[in-house]
Amino acid sequence: MRLARAITTVRSTVRSALARRHSIERARSGRRAPRPGALRRAMSASSSSHPGATFGPIDIPSTQIFHETPTTFALVNLKPVVPGHVLVCPRRVARKFTDLSDDEIGDLWRTVAAVQRVMERVYDTTSSTLAIQDGPLAGQSVPHVHVHVLPRREGDFARNDDVYDELEKWRALDDDRAPRTAEEMKSEADALRVMF
Amino acid sequence: MRLARAITTVRSTVRSALARRHSIERARSGRRAPRPGALRRAMSASSSSHPGATFGPIDIPSTQIFHETPTTFALVNLKPVVPGHVLVCPRRVARKFTDLSDDEIGDLWRTVAAVQRVMERVYDTTSSTLAIQDGPLAGQSVPHVHVHVLPRREGDFARNDDVYDELEKWRALDDDRAPRTAEEMKSEADALRVMF
Repeated sequence: MRLARAITTVRSTVRSALARRHSIERARSGRRAPRPGALRRAMSASSSSHPGATFGPIDIPSTQIFHETPTTFALVNLKPVVPGHVLVCPRRVARKFTDLSDDEIGDLWRTVAAVQRVMERVYDTTSSTLAIQDGPLAGQSVPHVHVHVLPRREGDFARNDDVYDELEKWRALDDDRAPRTAEEMKSEADALRVMF
Repeated sequence: MRLARAITTVRSTVRSALARRHSIERARSGRRAPRPGALRRAMSASSSSHPGATFGPIDIPSTQIFHETPTTFALVNLKPVVPGHVLVCPRRVARKFTDLSDDEIGDLWRTVAAVQRVMERVYDTTSSTLAIQDGPLAGQSVPHVHVHVLPRREGDFARNDDVYDELEKWRALDDDRAPRTAEEMKSEADALRVMF
């Protein structure tokens, strides 16, 4: 029951956020904005014991971290490009994937697999895009290794790989996408945390 | 000297293949085709002891494998979308990343790091795109886990993430790109093999 509720909450939280974002985008583009979906209430999960983490120059509060190991953490996303788009990072601030130790590499990707299993269950799919933009010429925006995990659904983009156009804009300062609120991100992280 | 020669050979082999491919594409599109670059002679590397591998339904000859471990192998590419676009796969035929064991995951990605270091050295860059299209809805074309490793260079695509449009077409049967010849692939693999 707890798990079913968590899945429902994660889905509705992210969908509401995406609906709200699209409504803002449509309003900005001068078209009539649809009525935004109501933001679901945050789950009443107990407060996290996660100590927070550093993501490049950014301090990530513990409320946005939903899974971690001694060398890896997984966080929800300020600007997800699909529902369930999350990030998995080494705890140590390393710019390049090739800067990681063998142990960090193994732990990072085992954690990606664990996160991917949960996200595919939540979003009822068996496909995901996994990607590292490793270095500025590959589109890296935050100078800290991060694996993008994106559950993929039928028809989520007009062309399959439009997902990457969105990834490119993911952290762009000049895009039109409204960042999610701290409360929205906390709700998603709380719901995901209980699934590990 | 041997290493420098290997680097030069890999670069020229792949560039020739790409120039040839572009010439075929231009000819097909009705424009005047530039004179194709001459295919460089294969390096006189000793024949490989690599036993070949299975990539989904495809038998990969040992001549196309340039690095391997007991559970992972790295192969050159029938249709690279940028110079140095190679693949790293688990030896066991597994459809999904989440089907791999912890040991296979660690070995796969440690091998990716080793391959990435070599390819960035060969192509004189510090940026790479690393991606798994994990499942059909993510654009997976061969039902066997494979990590795309693409060294990225300044200006290699008009927009950074056009690389993914090319990835989407990578194994498409109906695209206009000519597959490389066995000889071209062998030359590249021979040159890369000595760098590990």
